[in-house]
Amino acid sequence: MHAITIPEAGGPEALVWAEVPDPVPGEGEVLVDVVASAVNRADLLQRQGFYNPPPGSSPYPGLECAGRVTDIGPGVTGWKIGDEVCALLAGGGYAEQVVVPVGQLLPVPDGIDLVTAAALPEVTSTVWSNVFMISHLRPGETFLVHGGSSGIGTMAIQLAKAIGATVAVTAGSKVKLDFCRELGADILINYREQDFVEEIKRATDGAGADVILDNMGAKYLDRNVQSLATNGRLAIIGMQGGVKGELNIATLLNKRAAVTATSLRGRPAEEKASIVAAVREHVWPLIGAGHVRPIVDRTVPMSDAAAAHRVLEESSHIGKVLLVR
Amino acid sequence: MHAITIPEAGGPEALVWAEVPDPVPGEGEVLVDVVASAVNRADLLQRQGFYNPPPGSSPYPGLECAGRVTDIGPGVTGWKIGDEVCALLAGGGYAEQVVVPVGQLLPVPDGIDLVTAAALPEVTSTVWSNVFMISHLRPGETFLVHGGSSGIGTMAIQLAKAIGATVAVTAGSKVKLDFCRELGADILINYREQDFVEEIKRATDGAGADVILDNMGAKYLDRNVQSLATNGRLAIIGMQGGVKGELNIATLLNKRAAVTATSLRGRPAEEKASIVAAVREHVWPLIGAGHVRPIVDRTVPMSDAAAAHRVLEESSHIGKVLLVR
Repeated sequence: MHAITIPEAGGPEALVWAEVPDPVPGEGEVLVDVVASAVNRADLLQRQGFYNPPPGSSPYPGLECAGRVTDIGPGVTGWKIGDEVCALLAGGGYAEQVVVPVGQLLPVPDGIDLVTAAALPEVTSTVWSNVFMISHLRPGETFLVHGGSSGIGTMAIQLAKAIGATVAVTAGSKVKLDFCRELGADILINYREQDFVEEIKRATDGAGADVILDNMGAKYLDRNVQSLATNGRLAIIGMQGGVKGELNIATLLNKRAAVTATSLRGRPAEEKASIVAAVREHVWPLIGAGHVRPIVDRTVPMSDAAAAHRVLEESSHIGKVLLVR
Repeated sequence: MHAITIPEAGGPEALVWAEVPDPVPGEGEVLVDVVASAVNRADLLQRQGFYNPPPGSSPYPGLECAGRVTDIGPGVTGWKIGDEVCALLAGGGYAEQVVVPVGQLLPVPDGIDLVTAAALPEVTSTVWSNVFMISHLRPGETFLVHGGSSGIGTMAIQLAKAIGATVAVTAGSKVKLDFCRELGADILINYREQDFVEEIKRATDGAGADVILDNMGAKYLDRNVQSLATNGRLAIIGMQGGVKGELNIATLLNKRAAVTATSLRGRPAEEKASIVAAVREHVWPLIGAGHVRPIVDRTVPMSDAAAAHRVLEESSHIGKVLLVR
């Protein structure tokens, strides 16, 4: 088969579409013929040599895919050859075929075409696990998501609105904020022109956000803690603004607040399976009913993954960038 | 009545035993004739002017007491005049009488005398709410408590052992560590001579602690995060080592770990009541059965509270220092 390989870490041009050995499904795995994959920030880090795949996973980038089951390993039940699926991956989505542990397979939701389904596994799993399973966002609470127009952001807005939360977003342009409003966001903050701490306090009568989903890490740590409400929860899923930040423990203690940080990729298979099962139970019906939809900025041929990476690096996209065969 | 007042913030001599107006129980409150109170670190901060009582609470120090119910306000059920009780307070324990919201009252556990019962409310509520309600310490997990010979520490060791955890402690002398071992601690770390990160890793085959209960704040933040296991939870309840610390978000994220910080005193009455109810349900039977016991270093006459504060400032005590009438 062909896959995007990274012979040498570097810029987008480091991504090379090349002939590689066909993967073979093992115990509890299926083989999926990939119709589409999607680009995640972690793929850019992997390309640059900063984020090696976990032991035992595919060396090729790609943390999610959609396609058809073409082979089934020993011990697999509940799936058959020809099934249309999408899947959360530890790697290998940028390829013609990929091996998937059954716990990470999802059916294509009602009303979603097979290509678009590739936009769903990472964002639904990341948002559901962090905002709901870890941070327990509840109806009536205020939720702040940074980067509201990103793939994660667009899904987070919709899921938080679907459960009855008030949603605040930060983004870097009016076009992006307008899109967030269309998705249901209530409080729109242009981080280039406004101080998000002030804006979230003003919009909540000084109370702050009950849950914050953050991709910036160190750069926003202190301001995120300042923005939290009493009993607030800050869930960090990215470090685009650096690794080491100052934590004001007195502020955290006075608010009885929590800071968590997670990644999906490094979790063991059983944790991924339990997240995927929760996504199928809670998120898939919302998508099937049309309350929540995948947001796709554009599709790019998989063999030209470099072009897709450039789109993410420019950050002018809204929603997900898909790679198609 | 008499109470310890703080006419002017300062050293232990700032504590003055003086005639003050008698308190009167309001709706949902009882009046308790105080037999004993106990000293907490927060009292020292209050004496120094760094920790004002929350609005609406007594101006006198004292976050817990034991005594007898002598009057009952409107709307109180389940308690009667003459009942022997202990109680979690927002303040006012260093006094002959104190008003207590009924949600913060506890019966004296079986087998415990009334004076000794004053050693229980703060440590049981703090440990149960942080280690079990927030950090969900589970049987078989490793629990690290800093200051293992303190009031909090001696209770935390026993409760963690009672639920089947492996317990590690830090303390500053062999005498203190020996006492922690007698209470059941498995891993003993002298913080003056050993690096607790190294020692906890060595004792857990590199895994680290699943839950850490910390009273040091900034000074230990980075080392605590280094000491956490995958899915570890750091619960901060004090800032004896400062307020602002550096948080390594990459370490936290790779471990999928959580940092929480809380105080008991600032919680609204309904949260205190739910913690006290959980303590009565889960901790009181363990005390009644003799599996967990209050550790009392000494008793000091309440009118000489200054002497008791000096004991805490010297930090040579083990367990709680009580104030008796």
